[in-house]
Amino acid sequence: MSLQSVAKQFVDLCNQGKNFDVMQTMYAPDIVSVEASGNETAGQEAVIQKSKNWAAGLTLHGEKVRGPFFNGPNQFAVHFTFEVTPKATGQRVTQEEVGVYTVNAADKIVREQFFYEGNW
Amino acid sequence: MSLQSVAKQFVDLCNQGKNFDVMQTMYAPDIVSVEASGNETAGQEAVIQKSKNWAAGLTLHGEKVRGPFFNGPNQFAVHFTFEVTPKATGQRVTQEEVGVYTVNAADKIVREQFFYEGNW
Repeated sequence: MSLQSVAKQFVDLCNQGKNFDVMQTMYAPDIVSVEASGNETAGQEAVIQKSKNWAAGLTLHGEKVRGPFFNGPNQFAVHFTFEVTPKATGQRVTQEEVGVYTVNAADKIVREQFFYEGNW
Repeated sequence: MSLQSVAKQFVDLCNQGKNFDVMQTMYAPDIVSVEASGNETAGQEAVIQKSKNWAAGLTLHGEKVRGPFFNGPNQFAVHFTFEVTPKATGQRVTQEEVGVYTVNAADKIVREQFFYEGNW
């Protein structure tokens, strides 16, 4: 596949709510995930567990992904809009974020970097 | 200013159509601009000229900027939507892109990286 094909598959699956399928099939074993704080999580299983922890803390009502947007030979970006109700507050909110993804020569995602709204 | 203040000023000025004010006042003299192709342009004047060339090739009807979105101590991202009519085609189109910006300790933008839709 090309970078374009990988990115299109990523967006299509996320728009179907299949984010965990993406992580299980499109992430490299040694993926590094960079949170808005700058904290890094390394390894596919650890990154999936981090996302499970995020998902466990809220009710997800909907997800819309814009993009993909491309830069250079191995990077793409997307714009996420999540409709969620965090269990901690019970208040439904819209969360927007940008994700930047790096793809390796084997068409696997080796790095994800999340940009969040507001203070963190 | 903080990273948050720099990013908010950036978004506010762009939403007022003041993109060239941003480049003239918020960019470092040694800024590097990375296009979707991966090509780099170095230096504030060269980067401003590149944007002038882009603007000269189209009619800009409107611009909306979402964000800022933050990652780590010195980076923010935005999502642009431009309504433009390229002079080459005469066809009005909506162009979306993501920009990732790096800010130095002096609160100046030292790197911009553009992610574009589609093939380039």
